[in-house]
Amino acid sequence: MIATLKFTTLLLAVVVCWATQDYGYKDVEEPTLGDSQYGSLWPLPQKVQMSTVAFKLSGASFQIVDAKESSSGASCSLLQNAYRRYDEYIFPISRMQGQNKKKAFASDVSELQVWITSADSECDSYPSVTSDESCECPGMMFVFLVGALSLETFSQLVYDDEYGAKSINRTEIQDFPRFAHRGLLLDTSRHFLPIKVILANLEAMAWNKFNVFHWHIVDDHSFPYMSRTFPQLSQQGAYHPYTHVYTPSDVKMIIEFARLRGIRVVSEFDTPGHTQSWGKGQKDLLTPCYSGTSPSGSFGPVNPILNTTYDFMTMFFKEVSTVFPDAYIHLGGDEVDFSCWKSNPDIQKFMAQQGFGTDYSKLESFYIQRCVASVRHGLKVKQMISNSLKADTLIHVWKGNQQQYQAEMARVTASGYQTLLSTPWYLNRISYGQDWQAAYKADPQDFNGTDAQKKLVVGGEACLWGEFVDATNLTPRLWPRASAVGERLWSDKDVKDTNDAYSRLIQHRCRMVQRGIPAEPLFTGYCAHEYKGV
Amino acid sequence: MIATLKFTTLLLAVVVCWATQDYGYKDVEEPTLGDSQYGSLWPLPQKVQMSTVAFKLSGASFQIVDAKESSSGASCSLLQNAYRRYDEYIFPISRMQGQNKKKAFASDVSELQVWITSADSECDSYPSVTSDESCECPGMMFVFLVGALSLETFSQLVYDDEYGAKSINRTEIQDFPRFAHRGLLLDTSRHFLPIKVILANLEAMAWNKFNVFHWHIVDDHSFPYMSRTFPQLSQQGAYHPYTHVYTPSDVKMIIEFARLRGIRVVSEFDTPGHTQSWGKGQKDLLTPCYSGTSPSGSFGPVNPILNTTYDFMTMFFKEVSTVFPDAYIHLGGDEVDFSCWKSNPDIQKFMAQQGFGTDYSKLESFYIQRCVASVRHGLKVKQMISNSLKADTLIHVWKGNQQQYQAEMARVTASGYQTLLSTPWYLNRISYGQDWQAAYKADPQDFNGTDAQKKLVVGGEACLWGEFVDATNLTPRLWPRASAVGERLWSDKDVKDTNDAYSRLIQHRCRMVQRGIPAEPLFTGYCAHEYKGV
Repeated sequence: MIATLKFTTLLLAVVVCWATQDYGYKDVEEPTLGDSQYGSLWPLPQKVQMSTVAFKLSGASFQIVDAKESSSGASCSLLQNAYRRYDEYIFPISRMQGQNKKKAFASDVSELQVWITSADSECDSYPSVTSDESCECPGMMFVFLVGALSLETFSQLVYDDEYGAKSINRTEIQDFPRFAHRGLLLDTSRHFLPIKVILANLEAMAWNKFNVFHWHIVDDHSFPYMSRTFPQLSQQGAYHPYTHVYTPSDVKMIIEFARLRGIRVVSEFDTPGHTQSWGKGQKDLLTPCYSGTSPSGSFGPVNPILNTTYDFMTMFFKEVSTVFPDAYIHLGGDEVDFSCWKSNPDIQKFMAQQGFGTDYSKLESFYIQRCVASVRHGLKVKQMISNSLKADTLIHVWKGNQQQYQAEMARVTASGYQTLLSTPWYLNRISYGQDWQAAYKADPQDFNGTDAQKKLVVGGEACLWGEFVDATNLTPRLWPRASAVGERLWSDKDVKDTNDAYSRLIQHRCRMVQRGIPAEPLFTGYCAHEYKGV
Repeated sequence: MIATLKFTTLLLAVVVCWATQDYGYKDVEEPTLGDSQYGSLWPLPQKVQMSTVAFKLSGASFQIVDAKESSSGASCSLLQNAYRRYDEYIFPISRMQGQNKKKAFASDVSELQVWITSADSECDSYPSVTSDESCECPGMMFVFLVGALSLETFSQLVYDDEYGAKSINRTEIQDFPRFAHRGLLLDTSRHFLPIKVILANLEAMAWNKFNVFHWHIVDDHSFPYMSRTFPQLSQQGAYHPYTHVYTPSDVKMIIEFARLRGIRVVSEFDTPGHTQSWGKGQKDLLTPCYSGTSPSGSFGPVNPILNTTYDFMTMFFKEVSTVFPDAYIHLGGDEVDFSCWKSNPDIQKFMAQQGFGTDYSKLESFYIQRCVASVRHGLKVKQMISNSLKADTLIHVWKGNQQQYQAEMARVTASGYQTLLSTPWYLNRISYGQDWQAAYKADPQDFNGTDAQKKLVVGGEACLWGEFVDATNLTPRLWPRASAVGERLWSDKDVKDTNDAYSRLIQHRCRMVQRGIPAEPLFTGYCAHEYKGV
């Protein structure tokens, strides 16, 4: 995928051998792409003009190649990886090889030329929130112009005609994402997710043009992140010290797999709450809770009154910032239970010293400010995402009902913060029936605010919290429900016809199934190629 | 599994080499089986006495063998198949082979002797509703006495000690099922289920001591059953004429796979409603609906006024009765929409001739009576299950809320009918959280009625209707939620401690995962061996 290429304009040119006379074409009166005029495209590009003029892709001759003019090509492994992937998607059955078999007919598309126009192709660097995913259309016939992830779009245009021949209709596309941050949260603490489950879902994310994997890597339940600086954190805090951990190599592999697909990996290390598992391997990190005048033996949130806490955080996040190349770190920061802090006499004394009275949210703010300062100190360049208004950067809104989150979006943006929405996209919450529609209808800019406020919305994230999912059921529970969020975050805000979406999504889901992802059915019906993985 | 063996008493004797002195034992103070005193047993046997005296199963020497006194043995392939299966479950990692490696210690269990005491072992016949699944306990030490499916129970007693050695505690078990009919409904019409999905779920059914696969094979949406007599039914009515059908060989394979696991296959061919797919391949079978005075082009339920309908049904069910060896056929019979019948002038005329007035339920009764008569005529020996009181045999209750189904169970049994319950076990209905508990708490004998009425309850069925499930998500959605129903139908009615059940079910679920079934998690946590199939 080309999402990670930095460019001003990305061109994918399909050069076809064709005669100027009409008889060279095969006119398809009714496109066999389904009921939507947009076939199986998902998410819908910003502008699509699909004609009924169809061409065939010869399995014997079709190739994805670097355009002569392209600034990037054979030496760009990211690009070559993408060619290989999409060649296999388009021709899932091994096709005839050999140059001498090439025999292109007048109505054949012989090659897809990929033309990267930017000087800095980002071939060897990481995608970022400022990666340009847009494109322009020069208005040429047979030129497919798509933004980042354009090979995915191209592959979605290919369909089987009535004889099973790979075909594509002449189509002009202009594309760019509505939001720069299109994330998916997976939680590897409540249940450990084997690496191949994560990789499979990164693959599916790319098909749906998600570009941020929000890795909620640790939490109360387990600490599967293997830290080189503090190895005892996972040795003591993981469900199992080596079968249920992510080693540095595992993390590196996941980041590289994501990079090749234009996906950023934003790690989350949530503090000061949600840290029970941290306490097992790091003495004195958590607050000892008291029962009356003596310690109860249980522990609460991170202890905010000790300097050792901040020394630890500085060193820990320094490591994290080298392991995860993304410019952002997610600091969590939600759901801090004050009862343990309240029970602890040392904390009470500290509160009095600081003049916080009995307002423990002031202590929480104190921790977050100092933690952010420590983290900043440790890593300098990193930016923060947080669930708390006390942080000073991107605010992630993920609580409340519709009315509440809309009010929160208004408040956050009125205060000048950039924001991300997740509340309507808690995909771990399930209900009987077609609940993808509710996710599809939610819009992150749907709140009372000025245009300037709306511009502060950088996107959103679908969240699959891990209480009830693991390797056995995560993938079908996520797809194609997350696809609904994918289109909402990519396509134009006026793309909201659920009938049209349904028609395209059914096909998109079957495409995911055919490519090996067990995306669950939307309703009754069938795919030509049912899931074979069971 | 031995569920299909007809016997008065089934004995599984574990013969161990042991010294009479106590030092030969390894006393386990705290059983490592988990929090429940019953370890990971699921469903809970009727009587269990588990001691803390533990023995090891040597991978090099342990064997499942036919007892010398057994009436069935080496020539019974059903039994030999079960030995192989359970040997692999108990020792999932290939173990050392070779007679010379045998070295049994004093505290080792060297073999499990399977002692079939009945004269008719049912080795080569099919399980039935009267198959004896009970057992008796002679009170001998080290003798495991379990009912049908006893190898499963034995395998559930085996656990890894702290050194990873396969171990088993001395345990006495008396067992028999509370209900004779413990069913699971799968729907292969709304979505086609590949054969291996069905086989995998039959396997899981056996682990949960289900003994009836209720195969809702056809419905409105598709007709995947390939009929030899009327091949056009699936040619026209299946989603695809050969990729989405069950051939006679497929059906035979499924029945045999089930038989080897003590599971009956009860087929359902639902009429007169739910038959849209039948109409595609069978002209004049369905009622033409009218719009005003002319046919609208759409069709309603089976046409009850034509003799050809009953000729067809006679021939069709005659075939079905030879294909499916079980004594029961399920006739469906629910949710008949009268609007099409009402619109049709020929039906109106017939109603008048018969003196039915405008009571279309009388027409439905007419159809069902005549259909049952036809089916009976065609197959003689078959018994019927139906959703409708108009049938004359086993009534399947599957509608309404709790109050309504309990009233219905009371009414049905008061009328002297045998009955099956499904209402509380519609597992296709999902909600967020631990919904297995609601399924677990429902009891089919929980209604106002006499003891005689309660005895008419022959069991129940968990149903997984197919609107939203196919090969991608069916198995994790079903397990371990269906396990809750499995225990309710097998164990004593007083087994209803959800805490104890939870502790056992967590382990039972991990066991299913280890054996290759993607049973979804009940809550946070982990299995020592996570699902590897993704």
